[in-house]
Amino acid sequence: MAIEDVVRLALERGYFFPTAEIYPRAPAGFWEYGPLGTQLKRKFVEAWLREIVRRDEMLLIDGSQILPRDVFVASGHLETFADPISSCTRCNTIYRIDRLLEEHLGVKVPERTPPEEIDAIIRVNNFRCPSCGGELSPVSLFNMMFGLRVGGAGEEAYLRPETCQNIFIDFPRLYKISRRKLPIAFAQLGKSFRNEISPRQSLLRMREFTQAEVEVFFNPSKADDFEKFDVFRDYHLQISIDGEDVRMTCGDAVGRGIVSSRLVGYYLGLIQSFYLKLGIPPERLRLRRLGEAEKAFYAREGWDLEVLTSAGWVELVACNNRGDYDLSGHGRVSGADLTVTEDGVKVLPHIFELSMGVDRSILALLDIGYAEKGGRRILKMHPSLSPYTAAILPLLDRDELVSKARQVYDMLRLDFDVFFDTSGSIGRRYRRQDEIGTPYCITIDFETLKDDTVTVRDRDTMGQERLPITRLAEYISKAMRI
Amino acid sequence: MAIEDVVRLALERGYFFPTAEIYPRAPAGFWEYGPLGTQLKRKFVEAWLREIVRRDEMLLIDGSQILPRDVFVASGHLETFADPISSCTRCNTIYRIDRLLEEHLGVKVPERTPPEEIDAIIRVNNFRCPSCGGELSPVSLFNMMFGLRVGGAGEEAYLRPETCQNIFIDFPRLYKISRRKLPIAFAQLGKSFRNEISPRQSLLRMREFTQAEVEVFFNPSKADDFEKFDVFRDYHLQISIDGEDVRMTCGDAVGRGIVSSRLVGYYLGLIQSFYLKLGIPPERLRLRRLGEAEKAFYAREGWDLEVLTSAGWVELVACNNRGDYDLSGHGRVSGADLTVTEDGVKVLPHIFELSMGVDRSILALLDIGYAEKGGRRILKMHPSLSPYTAAILPLLDRDELVSKARQVYDMLRLDFDVFFDTSGSIGRRYRRQDEIGTPYCITIDFETLKDDTVTVRDRDTMGQERLPITRLAEYISKAMRI
Repeated sequence: MAIEDVVRLALERGYFFPTAEIYPRAPAGFWEYGPLGTQLKRKFVEAWLREIVRRDEMLLIDGSQILPRDVFVASGHLETFADPISSCTRCNTIYRIDRLLEEHLGVKVPERTPPEEIDAIIRVNNFRCPSCGGELSPVSLFNMMFGLRVGGAGEEAYLRPETCQNIFIDFPRLYKISRRKLPIAFAQLGKSFRNEISPRQSLLRMREFTQAEVEVFFNPSKADDFEKFDVFRDYHLQISIDGEDVRMTCGDAVGRGIVSSRLVGYYLGLIQSFYLKLGIPPERLRLRRLGEAEKAFYAREGWDLEVLTSAGWVELVACNNRGDYDLSGHGRVSGADLTVTEDGVKVLPHIFELSMGVDRSILALLDIGYAEKGGRRILKMHPSLSPYTAAILPLLDRDELVSKARQVYDMLRLDFDVFFDTSGSIGRRYRRQDEIGTPYCITIDFETLKDDTVTVRDRDTMGQERLPITRLAEYISKAMRI
Repeated sequence: MAIEDVVRLALERGYFFPTAEIYPRAPAGFWEYGPLGTQLKRKFVEAWLREIVRRDEMLLIDGSQILPRDVFVASGHLETFADPISSCTRCNTIYRIDRLLEEHLGVKVPERTPPEEIDAIIRVNNFRCPSCGGELSPVSLFNMMFGLRVGGAGEEAYLRPETCQNIFIDFPRLYKISRRKLPIAFAQLGKSFRNEISPRQSLLRMREFTQAEVEVFFNPSKADDFEKFDVFRDYHLQISIDGEDVRMTCGDAVGRGIVSSRLVGYYLGLIQSFYLKLGIPPERLRLRRLGEAEKAFYAREGWDLEVLTSAGWVELVACNNRGDYDLSGHGRVSGADLTVTEDGVKVLPHIFELSMGVDRSILALLDIGYAEKGGRRILKMHPSLSPYTAAILPLLDRDELVSKARQVYDMLRLDFDVFFDTSGSIGRRYRRQDEIGTPYCITIDFETLKDDTVTVRDRDTMGQERLPITRLAEYISKAMRI
């Protein structure tokens, strides 16, 4: 299926749909998750909490989205977090000009190209408005942060463009209360906001989106002194460099200097293994090393975890070695001491981050999961992620079967996301569950009334097995294990 | 303990602390949850998901926080969501004037009192700036929404002041995809934003806060035709009217017309039982019926679920019968048809809501939970809510004990929030866990090395029992059951 088909299906089933769609003038780039999408997102987050946060013994925080101006003076966002724009002098359409030139002229405009140089490209190519042919205005920079005013005095503040800033500015207190030593990893789940000029491709480029970020604070002189590395030493990283797939063990990648340290190697292993456990086929996943021109301005080393969707390779996690950029900036602007003392020596920690796009991950899981098989449309995903883990279906819409099925449903519904459905033929109800990815259909039939057993049908194999009702909770729990 | 002590302890332990505290000019009213606070909040939300959302078979959504202007034209917020302010003409301090008058003169200024009338109160009492004695400026209205501009053209939008608006505007699509009939309940967890003039009392009045809202859409002519009511018919509601406690069954409250319908009675029972299950002592909880003057402007009937903290009675859940205010407003401004057809008749659903303040609930749980007992400071709360469910403690810091303890910890740490601590005497480590509310301390001693059993110490009784390691997971799971 093409990505457009996935989006259409998502709309029909209510996985997600445009925000304020009943209002004709509602701006683009904002999306609502309906019931199925919310459950899928919640379960993806649960998997992240378990397999990344708990597995690595990270500490989780939950900070404010509105942050004062000073934070973004220090982070550099006020100065540099801007996209080049140009508008048509005839029809007034505003364009994200670098992307427009790339699409129409095939010219790659690197990040942070000065506006005058982009103007020159437009002039040389005599490039005009693609919709009306009008002349384009001189290129200017458009800051992508949403600004707002706080309190009666109207103090300047911004919606955070990335969740990590909270962790940086909270670091002194977090370090103190943690009673831990470096390296120490903090994680946060939450919304971030970017005032994109041209939001597009539904969940891929949103103006309000959910991030799950991990920030690892480490002593740069001890980045190779990292015991946990053993877990991934012999694990194969699916590295891609300059378009070439280079599969090698974590140990080799560090040994050959392709990955800067054991610490970085370990976290690349952790994030790759997370997506593979969730069922992304290995051939659709790569860790792409970023070249000098594409790295974020603060990054010493950058890796994108990408997966291949029907819209091409999509970045799901930015893995950046941010060095001391963040703590030195916040230390300078705030005047606070952000160093820690290790063995009597003051150290300004460096930071390695795993910055995950939750919405993009959801879209990728839907895109990769949808399959047509013998006329059936199936959403294949790991049972721990499926919006509903099981459907409880009376074979026929007869009182004694429905009431028995309702008992089974009531037994399970507080602990699991289960769906109850009585309407339509059993085959039709199976197909409905296949389409929304429910891994197990539990059917209550006449035998159930006699011996308290049910059939459990597997979404992927369509095989059925007979189980006592008393064993269902255990069966489902086991199947959901990642 | 006074509420100030709770806030101080929360700061020390990092339950929560002010946002951007390293920046001297950071505005008030924004708070970060540290690791313990984040876990407590997450568990409170899990309890809500299980005991409210799943128990009632609600559908959960997750919508945008930024909503276009039209939404707030329809909701009335642009016009009426304003607080009266006045500033000192000498020292320029800006005051939320209604509250200031209440505090200093004991005058109750009802919501939506016109500014001129407040000016009159100031004049009559010759009231002046409490900090410098200067004259106060004429009262004006300050809209509490955070406005922002979206996209290159700068379209007007706002951060939602309440999460429910998403559910209202999403209703047509949600209703269609749900394949359900009225009454139908939707729930949403998320942030809301109010530009308070004087944020205060830490989590009680924040500018950015978390709500867990339930919106029940029902046919007003069938609000008594509600089968589920039987669950709470004989359940005692702790009603308070005009300062008087009136304890009566749900059935009586509906029968005597104190609660408007069976549907409303059922949901009041559901929300009261939720907090009682979580361990709020019954004598500290009441459902207060709001008088005409204090009801929200859109409400036909209003109930506040309040709990008694050391800062007095605090509203945790606003339970409002919103009538058709919301859907008729959004229908009018958007032009969309928000009716549903029931038995061939078009119906504009009415809405009953349970609007829960998550942060306030957290503060109340901390405030009520903290206790001093024989020199020990204990945070008592239901095991399902405690930030850590168990601590794994080797009796002594000796290799064989530590490594065995680490095995037990590794066995449990992906499925439960468990804490590993080796430092200090065992008594001191117990006390540390008591203070953060960990219900079980699991100690690994020399006997463990012989027979794989451990002691489990109960936070509240301090009693210990001996259990095989293999039974720990089951023991903890059971204890966490609400």
